[in-house]
Amino acid sequence: MMPTDEAHLGRHLLADLYGVAPQLLREPQAIERILLRAAQAAGATSIFSKFHQFGDGLGVTGVLLLRESHISIHTWPEHGFAAVDVFMCGDAQPELAIGIVRQALQPQQLRIEDVARGLIPIPMEG
Amino acid sequence: MMPTDEAHLGRHLLADLYGVAPQLLREPQAIERILLRAAQAAGATSIFSKFHQFGDGLGVTGVLLLRESHISIHTWPEHGFAAVDVFMCGDAQPELAIGIVRQALQPQQLRIEDVARGLIPIPMEG
Repeated sequence: MMPTDEAHLGRHLLADLYGVAPQLLREPQAIERILLRAAQAAGATSIFSKFHQFGDGLGVTGVLLLRESHISIHTWPEHGFAAVDVFMCGDAQPELAIGIVRQALQPQQLRIEDVARGLIPIPMEG
Repeated sequence: MMPTDEAHLGRHLLADLYGVAPQLLREPQAIERILLRAAQAAGATSIFSKFHQFGDGLGVTGVLLLRESHISIHTWPEHGFAAVDVFMCGDAQPELAIGIVRQALQPQQLRIEDVARGLIPIPMEG
């Protein structure tokens, strides 16, 4: 048998944004525009988007489905909090998407987990 | 000041399923039905669903938006691999959703990461 190494099919960044101005977390159309810009910055292609507001002044939940997987957001304006996920496969660069979201929502604190998804054995050369 | 403890707004389970029969990973409608059952088992309420296939026999990408956040799936039939995310807030039980997916897709191997999202200080009693 050939020796093998591992590659991963995708990278998934889980970003928790704290201390965001509540009014930024209540506007589904503005949030959709931010995430579309984020996808573009990462080199990803959006194939579908849906954003939903739970009621006037309440939180927003939404997703972009991408050729490269997805970006999702859920907001809690009452806590100044947003949970953003950027899951991308291929050559897309999810950290560039997070950069756009950070710039747009200006969190006082940002916590990111970077999770490799789909570890696949690949043949090694030599 | 009151002493505080922390609670989290949501739990996010990232499930990587390896060794799934490829034909199970190519059927967007069947996958949607599995995820709807998974949401129901967890005590969550679906508000929107969208499933997309990248071409005949190719992978599926899809999402359920929930009152309680989302369930997403991305499949790679060529690797027998699916990445499933179950992000739920409130009283929903995401591990019950993973149980349904596991039963339906019968992976040879399942790797789960359990990530708390949105740590919020709460007043402590006493």
